[in-house]
Amino acid sequence: MPIITLTTDFGLKDSHVGAMKGVIWSIAPQAQIADITHLISPQNIPEGAQILRRAAPFYPPGTIHLAVVDPGVGTERRPIAGRFGCHYVVGPDNGLFTALLEYHESQGNSVEFIHLTDRSYWLPQITSVFHGRDIFAPVAAHLANGVPLASLGEPVADIVRLTFAKPVPLTNGLRGEVTHIDHFGNLYTNILRSDLEGKRVREVHIGGTVVWDFVNTFGERMPGTLVSLFGSSDHFLVCEVNGNAAQRLGVQVGDDVEVFFE
Amino acid sequence: MPIITLTTDFGLKDSHVGAMKGVIWSIAPQAQIADITHLISPQNIPEGAQILRRAAPFYPPGTIHLAVVDPGVGTERRPIAGRFGCHYVVGPDNGLFTALLEYHESQGNSVEFIHLTDRSYWLPQITSVFHGRDIFAPVAAHLANGVPLASLGEPVADIVRLTFAKPVPLTNGLRGEVTHIDHFGNLYTNILRSDLEGKRVREVHIGGTVVWDFVNTFGERMPGTLVSLFGSSDHFLVCEVNGNAAQRLGVQVGDDVEVFFE
Amino acid sequence: MPIITLTTDFGLKDSHVGAMKGVIWSIAPQAQIADITHLISPQNIPEGAQILRRAAPFYPPGTIHLAVVDPGVGTERRPIAGRFGCHYVVGPDNGLFTALLEYHESQGNSVEFIHLTDRSYWLPQITSVFHGRDIFAPVAAHLANGVPLASLGEPVADIVRLTFAKPVPLTNGLRGEVTHIDHFGNLYTNILRSDLEGKRVREVHIGGTVVWDFVNTFGERMPGTLVSLFGSSDHFLVCEVNGNAAQRLGVQVGDDVEVFFE
Repeated sequence: MPIITLTTDFGLKDSHVGAMKGVIWSIAPQAQIADITHLISPQNIPEGAQILRRAAPFYPPGTIHLAVVDPGVGTERRPIAGRFGCHYVVGPDNGLFTALLEYHESQGNSVEFIHLTDRSYWLPQITSVFHGRDIFAPVAAHLANGVPLASLGEPVADIVRLTFAKPVPLTNGLRGEVTHIDHFGNLYTNILRSDLEGKRVREVHIGGTVVWDFVNTFGERMPGTLVSLFGSSDHFLVCEVNGNAAQRLGVQVGDDVEVFFE
Repeated sequence: MPIITLTTDFGLKDSHVGAMKGVIWSIAPQAQIADITHLISPQNIPEGAQILRRAAPFYPPGTIHLAVVDPGVGTERRPIAGRFGCHYVVGPDNGLFTALLEYHESQGNSVEFIHLTDRSYWLPQITSVFHGRDIFAPVAAHLANGVPLASLGEPVADIVRLTFAKPVPLTNGLRGEVTHIDHFGNLYTNILRSDLEGKRVREVHIGGTVVWDFVNTFGERMPGTLVSLFGSSDHFLVCEVNGNAAQRLGVQVGDDVEVFFE
Repeated sequence: MPIITLTTDFGLKDSHVGAMKGVIWSIAPQAQIADITHLISPQNIPEGAQILRRAAPFYPPGTIHLAVVDPGVGTERRPIAGRFGCHYVVGPDNGLFTALLEYHESQGNSVEFIHLTDRSYWLPQITSVFHGRDIFAPVAAHLANGVPLASLGEPVADIVRLTFAKPVPLTNGLRGEVTHIDHFGNLYTNILRSDLEGKRVREVHIGGTVVWDFVNTFGERMPGTLVSLFGSSDHFLVCEVNGNAAQRLGVQVGDDVEVFFE
């Protein structure tokens, strides 16, 4: 029985996530459900896209990734499902799957999308405000039960895609931006290992500070040292060893980071 | 094998929830466990009751809802289990199941309650402070294993019920109160869709502000607009589109809300 | 199929926990995964050790406890797995398992440790910053699949152990320290029930206040009363009934607590 992962901005204190799990198990009692996170910042679609891209590829073939960051719920925005290689996605057509989609495209995997229109796979009563429970959870459960993707609606190709800012070249360097601040206060950027083309980092300018220490891992420096390194998804990170770089530097998502090479 | 749902005020940083899951799986290894929430406000029985009522009905028949918001643990308050239609509940007899019970009664489902007195279904050692682990988790697991409800103790009928405030009529309107503030800062009230008897909302008075826009869903107005609408459980809500109405209006649980009709 | 528990400081808003679950289920699709907590304070190994010791013993034989609080990731600190009686542990060799190990030793259970060196049980690509995903999750999953512990690497005996402060005797009393503040603001100490040798508590000095009421459970006093009692793991606790003792007393982890006997 496939796994269904959940990625939402619903938080952990309300009934929403619990209701979705009840709907899933009412239809697909054997499904395994994995919470990726429910703490995407409210309505923050790009953040949800990034988290999903970093977690979803580690799941086995057949996994169904149900994601709901959905400020347009109940409007004209389409409910969709898709297949990325051997993985499935279900959620709103608002760009939430862009980063995961780009990953699968970069791997040469085939992709397809369905506009969810067959109401026989939805709950009998649909609200205007909670499609996570009323449409996406039952559709994901039916997929887990083996309902073919094509049965769920009409094929579409023109899904919404976000545009992620790319780093820009500087003289002997790159300018990128902070895209995520994690639980530890580590600063993720949109600069990838491949963007450096093997060049060695000399210094990093961020938040009015220069970070001199480029390392392989945190423990190479004393606690409290500012360092840069490549994270576990090959993004360029700025961190404080055993500390919170975001608080220390007063940096926010969207702020500039400049990397200069040796 | 049935599902066991968990609803508590234990939080997510301690060992309590993990210990309960260990106890459950030690007795019923095949049980599926679903966290509804562990972030009920400490000792807030009415909040727990509402969350449970909004999530639990979406689970399949046979599900066991284990809930622990239990300021009276270890005192004379009784440990109970119950059957609401095809669902089971396990927890303290302090009103925590009232809203779910009223829902099942409104559906015409039969209900019964048992005072948990047979210690052979409890852990061998019982503390005075953690019946979630010592009594309720093992009882839920034994129910999942097929132990009949009646075996767990003595039938009782006089369980504790909370009284929830009902909205009161105004001239061409209703006065209710805020009953819950969700993760997004949306303001839930005790006014139900049925209380409006089909009348159309003209304006809403709350937190010293008048909310003019009654909508079907958030995306009908620009971000930052205050709106009212019916939530996914048919409660009347006041929200800020893509924003936090509770913070903006400085409103708390228990504050008044007045709805006037066209 | 065994249960794999997860105890980390990764938080709940990022992709880390979701990625680990994906890795586990890619290798051991039938494993049951239980989150103990992901809110260990960042890099706080002693806190992780205590939480693990309080939750893990309640799991059934064969359970694999995967724990990652790992400031030394990617350095010379060893990745290890171990067997404590009928339970397994997987994680960094930094003392994180000390309290659980001491518990099993006190029960007379045999223990053994393996330095994880056989890379065939790891992910194909290993980062320097996320061994939770790259080494510990796949190793735990292989253990769940029945791979013998001894296959994973080389036996070791000299694992890192934390030293926990013990309470010191006073004239007709004990001085201990606060070791944990739970979700409710209850103050856990390093004083155990057995340390009192049956003596009765007369008064407790903490945070410049004297706590006079020693009780069996919270509900014996009115809300707002400061009380001391034994918690569900037999630790001596200072609590405010239905309140937050840590906030009220301004007490932090490491602060002194003095207990005087009748």
